[in-house]
Amino acid sequence: MASDIQLYGFDCPFVERSRLLLELKGVSYQYTSVKDFNPAPDWFLTLNPLGKVPVLIHQGKAIYESAIINEYLEDIFPSPAAFPVHPVDKAFCRILIDYCSKPFIANLFALLMNQDQEKTESLMAACLKDWRWLNAFLLEHNPDGDVAFGSGEGDFGMADLSYLPFFSRYAAVAYYRHFELPDEQAYARVKRWRDSCMTHPLAKALMMPEEHIIKLYYSHSQGWGAGRLPPKGQQNSLDPATPYEDRPMPPRPLPANING
Amino acid sequence: MASDIQLYGFDCPFVERSRLLLELKGVSYQYTSVKDFNPAPDWFLTLNPLGKVPVLIHQGKAIYESAIINEYLEDIFPSPAAFPVHPVDKAFCRILIDYCSKPFIANLFALLMNQDQEKTESLMAACLKDWRWLNAFLLEHNPDGDVAFGSGEGDFGMADLSYLPFFSRYAAVAYYRHFELPDEQAYARVKRWRDSCMTHPLAKALMMPEEHIIKLYYSHSQGWGAGRLPPKGQQNSLDPATPYEDRPMPPRPLPANING
Repeated sequence: MASDIQLYGFDCPFVERSRLLLELKGVSYQYTSVKDFNPAPDWFLTLNPLGKVPVLIHQGKAIYESAIINEYLEDIFPSPAAFPVHPVDKAFCRILIDYCSKPFIANLFALLMNQDQEKTESLMAACLKDWRWLNAFLLEHNPDGDVAFGSGEGDFGMADLSYLPFFSRYAAVAYYRHFELPDEQAYARVKRWRDSCMTHPLAKALMMPEEHIIKLYYSHSQGWGAGRLPPKGQQNSLDPATPYEDRPMPPRPLPANING
Repeated sequence: MASDIQLYGFDCPFVERSRLLLELKGVSYQYTSVKDFNPAPDWFLTLNPLGKVPVLIHQGKAIYESAIINEYLEDIFPSPAAFPVHPVDKAFCRILIDYCSKPFIANLFALLMNQDQEKTESLMAACLKDWRWLNAFLLEHNPDGDVAFGSGEGDFGMADLSYLPFFSRYAAVAYYRHFELPDEQAYARVKRWRDSCMTHPLAKALMMPEEHIIKLYYSHSQGWGAGRLPPKGQQNSLDPATPYEDRPMPPRPLPANING
């Protein structure tokens, strides 16, 4: 489908959410990778005064916040639908997405960035609690399925594509923090969800390979997040100047409890 | 309109958001005030495992998060519409509401609860910055109107009713922290918005009187918020046991800069 959609972003899970939806809907769009983003340049702040990606431009109007961009895309390109047909399932999808935007992402990045070994256990526990919450939610609302709710017209929809970029970020948490979901019933349904998202054709087409994710979040794993730069002379691994292929594989820390 | 809607809540701005929308749409509903909420009782946690109000029950399904409840109500009772007709204006409404849920509310309550006089100035500045951001946003998207965007069928819609409960909470910030919007052009448009919301017939019908707001947030003004109880023997002013009419007017602190 031809369109006059422009999307601004960089290698960021929120941007991936909107790219996944555009691909799902078969909407053609122009993608512009924003560089030198720390701090955001003035031309970008005129598009989004909050200085964050993604920004979608359509008919000269700038829309931001990935969940809002995606609601907008669903409004203007209703087919194929990404939300389920029934309003109550749509509401449950939004509850899931809201849960992602709040504890799920916060706990994921808190664990990834943590430098204080004494906090590791409670941060791990917070992440595991999120996965169990999701498991229980899915068991209540769609016990037998693989995806969360799917869409009105397929097996992969708004909730699924909203979580996928963060499921994929867990590769960094697994590598740097040795986080793994226990092999227990309390995680069985959510694992099935995660796996069905991670192996979806759109995931294969759009998601970064695990190795790139690990390289991208090396600075995070050392405690330097998106908003804070490492000490002088050290390059933030979010800096796109060096292609992933040219970066060495970062060293993997030992598990926190190796001597515990 | 008859309906089988139940809403659980207490004197809480997020609950007011959903009540305002139900009233706007003329939907009849049964309202249950939840008491003894700290911590949330088990029967309530079965409705919303996150333990927060409002919770909407419709056809046996529990939906929570005020913004999600309101999207659901818009889906199932499309007329009168609360969102504007044009999808891009709908997206801008959602951006406004999202801004409310993030910095606007956080800064409002940070200033209200602050006990450290040295922080007062920067907290005031953060609140003022939010109001200026809103002013600029409105000037860009609806410079001449009174409301934010209104609705598809009226002059008061989703963005307006989502902010109103928080505009009304500023009565407590004005009383306890002497916060006032400066008489400057940078606040003129947002003041017009606030005033048009605060004087809307639905506001008069549903919002608590200013004096009750002040009494309700007395504990907040002393640093005890919704999640923390005051020291032993002291009652949290959120506790509904004593009717507002029977509570004395709390003492008003002097302005922070009285000796400055």
